[in-house]
Amino acid sequence: MKERLALALDVPLDRAVLREVSHYIGVLKIGWPLILELGLDGVRELVRSLNWVEVIADLKLADIYDTMSKVVTKLSFVDSFIAHSFIGIEEALGPLKIDLDQKGKGLYLVLSMSHPGWDDEVYPKLLEVVRKVSPKGVIVGATKPTMVAKARKDLSKARILSPGVGAQGGSPGDAICAGADVEIVGRRIYTAKDPVMESRAVLKALEERVSQCLRGT
Amino acid sequence: MKERLALALDVPLDRAVLREVSHYIGVLKIGWPLILELGLDGVRELVRSLNWVEVIADLKLADIYDTMSKVVTKLSFVDSFIAHSFIGIEEALGPLKIDLDQKGKGLYLVLSMSHPGWDDEVYPKLLEVVRKVSPKGVIVGATKPTMVAKARKDLSKARILSPGVGAQGGSPGDAICAGADVEIVGRRIYTAKDPVMESRAVLKALEERVSQCLRGT
Repeated sequence: MKERLALALDVPLDRAVLREVSHYIGVLKIGWPLILELGLDGVRELVRSLNWVEVIADLKLADIYDTMSKVVTKLSFVDSFIAHSFIGIEEALGPLKIDLDQKGKGLYLVLSMSHPGWDDEVYPKLLEVVRKVSPKGVIVGATKPTMVAKARKDLSKARILSPGVGAQGGSPGDAICAGADVEIVGRRIYTAKDPVMESRAVLKALEERVSQCLRGT
Repeated sequence: MKERLALALDVPLDRAVLREVSHYIGVLKIGWPLILELGLDGVRELVRSLNWVEVIADLKLADIYDTMSKVVTKLSFVDSFIAHSFIGIEEALGPLKIDLDQKGKGLYLVLSMSHPGWDDEVYPKLLEVVRKVSPKGVIVGATKPTMVAKARKDLSKARILSPGVGAQGGSPGDAICAGADVEIVGRRIYTAKDPVMESRAVLKALEERVSQCLRGT
């Protein structure tokens, strides 16, 4: 089940600790805070040192293609990138998708964010962009299981990643029970006194919740 | 007039060349491509070595506050940041604005982007966010002078920055004539054979166009 959990690593963790964590959490999500902290070389080394199922660069790309293209070229050591669907297709997500396909990289598009300020009134518009771009998957906040269920219904084949488990209020397993493929947990792990114990606890809670919902309880 | 022109520096320029360019262009806009190329230390040094009127970090911030806060803390050497109004206020732009105010930094919000894929149907929604957050200014693409004029009418006091002059199709002076405060030019300068000559040419074209529109021709 560990391939259904992702660690949002916004601050560096000790290499040995991270190795232990990776026994319970299969996917690694990195972003700008870690890149600014360690530099590109530091992040590259950290990413390559362990066997992650997938490494996702959560850069929330939201610029013209010319700029996004300069960015993704520098991060050839990751498997996939997260971009915002709201920037649209022409001279933005359209050429980015082609570029990433050619590089053998995946693209995830943000469909609904996890924080309360996000306005889901634009969901239909973003869904239209997602359907046209046909990315590897989408991002839907774990804090809103009804939006996860909606996205699963609207996009039967897309991989759904759900951030917001832990500090933001999502409970392990709820998003997967609603139709997500992967749940993302960050602060709850990396600010824990013992990130390894916490990872194991999150994985266990997730497994229990998912086995419950599979039984229909 | 040079304070009304910004250089979008996506690739490094020779220090001596940049010094000459800064005689014609007063504002410096940096972003992720330059940060990934030079590292934070390299960008800090580049920024500090010349007397810019304003240095803007165009990171297109579009994440939850917790993540944006980690990013802006690392870039204390710039004057202002650009974020997307699209992400909304609660646990996003609201706390970011408070944070930047406390740090004495400016916030610009994207109201309308310069590329053709951007959908201006969401303009009223974004305008509402901008009015609530009350940032230092907004971003409206120079490729769409009618949107610049609309933003100027809707936000009489906001500073309007207009990217997209040059490679993206905007002509020097058009956005300012429509109500913008600063026009942003990137590739036309940094990919030019002689960036200094090109900067001078852009400033001259801008001055001519603006003096024309001030005369009402």
